[in-house]
Amino acid sequence: MARPLDLNPDRLFPSDPTTRAIARTLYAEIADLPIVSPHGHTDAGWFADDTAWTDATALLLAPDHYIFRMLYSQGIDLDALAIPRRSGTPATDPRAAWRVFAQNLHLFRGTPSRMWLDHVFAEVFGFEVALGADTADLYFDTIAEKLASPAFRPRALFDRFKIDFLATTEGPQDDLGAHHRIRASGWGGRVVTTYRPDGVIDVEHEHFAGAMARFAELTGEDVYSWKGYLAAHRKRRADFRAAGATATDHGHPTAATANLSPVEAEALFGKIVGGRWTAADAELFRAQMLTEMAAMSVEDGMVMQIHPGSFRNHNAGLFASHGRDKGADIPMRTDYVHALKPLLDRFGTSTELSIILFTLDESVYARELAPLAGHYPCLKLGPSWWFHDSPEGMRRFREMTTETAGFYNTVGFNDDTRAFLSIPARHDVARRVDCGFLARLVAEHRLADWEAAELAQELTSGLVRRAYRIDSPEIAAKAA
Amino acid sequence: MARPLDLNPDRLFPSDPTTRAIARTLYAEIADLPIVSPHGHTDAGWFADDTAWTDATALLLAPDHYIFRMLYSQGIDLDALAIPRRSGTPATDPRAAWRVFAQNLHLFRGTPSRMWLDHVFAEVFGFEVALGADTADLYFDTIAEKLASPAFRPRALFDRFKIDFLATTEGPQDDLGAHHRIRASGWGGRVVTTYRPDGVIDVEHEHFAGAMARFAELTGEDVYSWKGYLAAHRKRRADFRAAGATATDHGHPTAATANLSPVEAEALFGKIVGGRWTAADAELFRAQMLTEMAAMSVEDGMVMQIHPGSFRNHNAGLFASHGRDKGADIPMRTDYVHALKPLLDRFGTSTELSIILFTLDESVYARELAPLAGHYPCLKLGPSWWFHDSPEGMRRFREMTTETAGFYNTVGFNDDTRAFLSIPARHDVARRVDCGFLARLVAEHRLADWEAAELAQELTSGLVRRAYRIDSPEIAAKAA
Amino acid sequence: MARPLDLNPDRLFPSDPTTRAIARTLYAEIADLPIVSPHGHTDAGWFADDTAWTDATALLLAPDHYIFRMLYSQGIDLDALAIPRRSGTPATDPRAAWRVFAQNLHLFRGTPSRMWLDHVFAEVFGFEVALGADTADLYFDTIAEKLASPAFRPRALFDRFKIDFLATTEGPQDDLGAHHRIRASGWGGRVVTTYRPDGVIDVEHEHFAGAMARFAELTGEDVYSWKGYLAAHRKRRADFRAAGATATDHGHPTAATANLSPVEAEALFGKIVGGRWTAADAELFRAQMLTEMAAMSVEDGMVMQIHPGSFRNHNAGLFASHGRDKGADIPMRTDYVHALKPLLDRFGTSTELSIILFTLDESVYARELAPLAGHYPCLKLGPSWWFHDSPEGMRRFREMTTETAGFYNTVGFNDDTRAFLSIPARHDVARRVDCGFLARLVAEHRLADWEAAELAQELTSGLVRRAYRIDSPEIAAKAA
Repeated sequence: MARPLDLNPDRLFPSDPTTRAIARTLYAEIADLPIVSPHGHTDAGWFADDTAWTDATALLLAPDHYIFRMLYSQGIDLDALAIPRRSGTPATDPRAAWRVFAQNLHLFRGTPSRMWLDHVFAEVFGFEVALGADTADLYFDTIAEKLASPAFRPRALFDRFKIDFLATTEGPQDDLGAHHRIRASGWGGRVVTTYRPDGVIDVEHEHFAGAMARFAELTGEDVYSWKGYLAAHRKRRADFRAAGATATDHGHPTAATANLSPVEAEALFGKIVGGRWTAADAELFRAQMLTEMAAMSVEDGMVMQIHPGSFRNHNAGLFASHGRDKGADIPMRTDYVHALKPLLDRFGTSTELSIILFTLDESVYARELAPLAGHYPCLKLGPSWWFHDSPEGMRRFREMTTETAGFYNTVGFNDDTRAFLSIPARHDVARRVDCGFLARLVAEHRLADWEAAELAQELTSGLVRRAYRIDSPEIAAKAA
Repeated sequence: MARPLDLNPDRLFPSDPTTRAIARTLYAEIADLPIVSPHGHTDAGWFADDTAWTDATALLLAPDHYIFRMLYSQGIDLDALAIPRRSGTPATDPRAAWRVFAQNLHLFRGTPSRMWLDHVFAEVFGFEVALGADTADLYFDTIAEKLASPAFRPRALFDRFKIDFLATTEGPQDDLGAHHRIRASGWGGRVVTTYRPDGVIDVEHEHFAGAMARFAELTGEDVYSWKGYLAAHRKRRADFRAAGATATDHGHPTAATANLSPVEAEALFGKIVGGRWTAADAELFRAQMLTEMAAMSVEDGMVMQIHPGSFRNHNAGLFASHGRDKGADIPMRTDYVHALKPLLDRFGTSTELSIILFTLDESVYARELAPLAGHYPCLKLGPSWWFHDSPEGMRRFREMTTETAGFYNTVGFNDDTRAFLSIPARHDVARRVDCGFLARLVAEHRLADWEAAELAQELTSGLVRRAYRIDSPEIAAKAA
Repeated sequence: MARPLDLNPDRLFPSDPTTRAIARTLYAEIADLPIVSPHGHTDAGWFADDTAWTDATALLLAPDHYIFRMLYSQGIDLDALAIPRRSGTPATDPRAAWRVFAQNLHLFRGTPSRMWLDHVFAEVFGFEVALGADTADLYFDTIAEKLASPAFRPRALFDRFKIDFLATTEGPQDDLGAHHRIRASGWGGRVVTTYRPDGVIDVEHEHFAGAMARFAELTGEDVYSWKGYLAAHRKRRADFRAAGATATDHGHPTAATANLSPVEAEALFGKIVGGRWTAADAELFRAQMLTEMAAMSVEDGMVMQIHPGSFRNHNAGLFASHGRDKGADIPMRTDYVHALKPLLDRFGTSTELSIILFTLDESVYARELAPLAGHYPCLKLGPSWWFHDSPEGMRRFREMTTETAGFYNTVGFNDDTRAFLSIPARHDVARRVDCGFLARLVAEHRLADWEAAELAQELTSGLVRRAYRIDSPEIAAKAA
């Protein structure tokens, strides 16, 4: 028999009645604030073309590596879940894939994916019974039916979700066509791009050569000369600002930065594009490019995001058969203190530059990141990220950073997701966990109630708007 | 005046009344389930011969390095505690040693040893007053008297403790005589061995040469040739399976694995047995042998346990006077992401292979182990181990692994102990802490009550039985 | 309108009513115990000369890098806060600087600085309204007025704060004049020094040459010969003991120790004083000197404190303009297991030697420090330090060390501060957090109430007195 699907209004609040009552009051004031999503991976084409999604498997299962990695870890074949191979998408019936997922939902107990899914099922689709083996078909059919209706088109959901600002991520090799179509359409939703140049910076990426060729084509610059390469970045940064971007993003394996002389930098670049590089050269070039990007940010005002520390494509067999982004990226120990020093030696006292630091290594929160952000004017802390974007992960982030960096050196929440339908769920989790944390401080008389109320607003809205400069007309102006 | 000894029925449950009530309900359903102990260091001879233990010092103090390390850390001489030296056991009166311990029991406040001891004293021996200077003799005498009675013989306690499965640990140089005697005796208790080949793999171990000689003798193989060495492992693995083993265990200094070609591996083995090895060779050989053991596990179905990260015998002076296992092993920072890759590159997508990973470095729980186990089909997470086998350690384990790996990539509890009498106490602590953790998830509406009840059963019984394949007849069959 | 300034009597106690009631009871018994401050950085001259402080900015803002680093991190110019440059103190009106601070007090929400300040404002100065933009002048004027009165002179506050023992920190290049004046004055306050020889050990310190010259002058030894250098240390250690010192302190970048032969040590020293050293030589010399200092401690009974792991002066631009101690020191990952082994190989089994270990890397608490201190007789754990001297930091320290090291291998609280007025606030926070931790153990039936009461006394008074040997007449005697 189907179980009821209930979202308890007190979910994620601490159980102690005093603390819970405070959390409830704090949350009531910010629960309905518009969503600001300054970093994510939704497809701009959805909003450009506003075409309907087709079915539950294609929308919720196949693109979500949080979900299929867990199923895979328990020995479930990815073909049975309709996950695309390099050689093409397997001929799996989407309904059959959905059933496999539904039968194994117990694997997600205690995970954030489970909370996000329940929120999507209840709030977006209106289900009142839980997903399970017995309701798999009901879910599959109902979702297909709803997705076919106008109310479930991307733009309609964007409005329904009260999204005020949504950033996608594109590379220098992208023509931003979808973003141009959004702007040309006259639609009022604020969907902007983010400049993520990794594809033309990381020579170890399998698509580097192709990305460079496209980079040359789109800019008309000689991107194989150091001067032309930098000029091409400047051009594309301006293009991105014209498409609304206020930020760049950098997902290197480490946080290493370098501060080479122009002559050294040019020589290194020669090795990179000449194909005469070692792994150490590749790392040094990525490091130098972070500093070059910082230099350009000082010029054009774009906020830098540094997202290091992932060992990409750890599973060699799966990478061979299925390619990237299949749930096989594993965090690594990451140093920031030594890694960032070259860049900080050059720009550390700048009040123009703004760098948002993320980590997959929680041991650096209290030891490195909070002390750095609590000192350098140019540094701020991004929220708990990826594997740590979860109730316990968010709690640890606040407990380990607040006492040294305070709240005001943080930047609010990032959903960082491809799963558009889960965006409200993810922001809701963050708001609840933050209110629970603030409530504990109030209950322990470490913060006044009115201060907690102000902070709840800041954590939801104020900090993210200022940190990402989303209300700063001068950044768009620099695009001209 | 003697203090009462009370085991509060609510011990270890969170104090918040809502959470505590849920924890109580969950615990009531699993408190009396039989004990499955798939990894430990009890002496198989106890169950083979069923002879009586003699006194409190010999049974509870002298073999327990958790206890005498703490006393030693406060300047108490090990001779005063009757701890054996390399040159022999000091002529300390066991009663005098027990008194020293009793006088210093305050040192254990807040430690798991204290909880385990109180449980043993109250539940196994029936004491109603606490141990202290004033009750040392009462304890010593009462324990001696009880130990002399049939009800306190090893097999009687095994039954009284409701142990369903108990694994000991032996090396390839062990003839498994005790296990054979257990089987020949017709006694119904399921006590099995575990294959721990470190003694013939770690050339830096002081007894390597002797272990190899015995390995040759027991197998009749030329263990000094690479081919014969591998064949000898296969023979002994079959012997161990015949003595009930379902698992192997590997306690290397690091988690390093290697994937050498057969020619390289043979050359390296030549250096090892030829005595021409460096520390780097010794490490590489251990690394290669983990991969060789994985290859054999794919053949014979034995589950691999990897227990890395201990700096053994850190105290040089104490090692000289007293030898190994004297409380001087200290955890080290341990990498898994790079270390395991060679093995995973070869077997990572296997659904036959099962590897259970342990750590002494909690900073890897959320960063490395949970992401690895939440992806690779062959990997699961062992429980919090050794210094972390404690209420706070268990809580951190759940808080830092569940959101990424879920519950179903974990394997229940290990007591990992030589202290047989403490086995029920240790399992009880784990059950209580798990119920407390589940209760918090329910109280915060992150899990339904019926899901928590299912999980409590799984964490106590289901996961361990499946992970260690203890109900899998095909593993014993492969012994034939 | 000004907000009230209330110090809630239950602040920092857990919110759960059962736990809070226990914490209250425990705290009531130790709240008023005298303060023992065995490690800090107050100015001995204050107590020698007992001259009045001038104003709020000079007393509370300009010397406190916890405060101005946070303001600086948000882009506030240090000149506006009257922070001294290398070239001199900026001509900023102290009142204007105070106003900038007051306007930005919200930045400190959730930080320990905020709690300490509120305690100072309420308890020391008697304010009943909170500091803010509207009360900045009221605060500035009131504080100036009070500071001019006899009741706010250093010695009067020392008595009012019920300080029983206060250690300052001086180097071998210091003539201890202030300490001699204190003793000569007949004043009864026990203010003692601590021997911190880093200035003549760390050749990478910018003042090494000057410190060595002064070291020679004060001792009359040939400090440029290895023999004379060691003799000079012995002389100055005796001078320091005569000025009440019971401890030494060592703030190296890492915890590395070495155990060179006398010939090797002398050769290394030759390189150091000959100016022919590399960074590796400098590190090895610091490492060797920790072992030499341990050897002298075995002779003279002084307790060693090791405070490693800070990357000093990380902000190159700020170091150039403002010099040291400007909030730009950042913690680094720190190894202890391998680093301490050379020293421990020599002195690890000594029961004479006492070393107190601190860390800025919380990942070592459970992994390395608690296991080391829970084994070696000569090792104890200092409290959570610097960035971790905070409610959450203290809680993590207890949660991650107690189960392995117990309470009795810890040493009570250190305030480690230059901010004299905050000393009672800091000790009060530590007492409250410890009582909260003990209360949780009682509420979860992991500790009896009478044991918790005994431990609260120990954590406040007993452990620190014994660990720092402050009641040991034999140490002073060895000065003769």
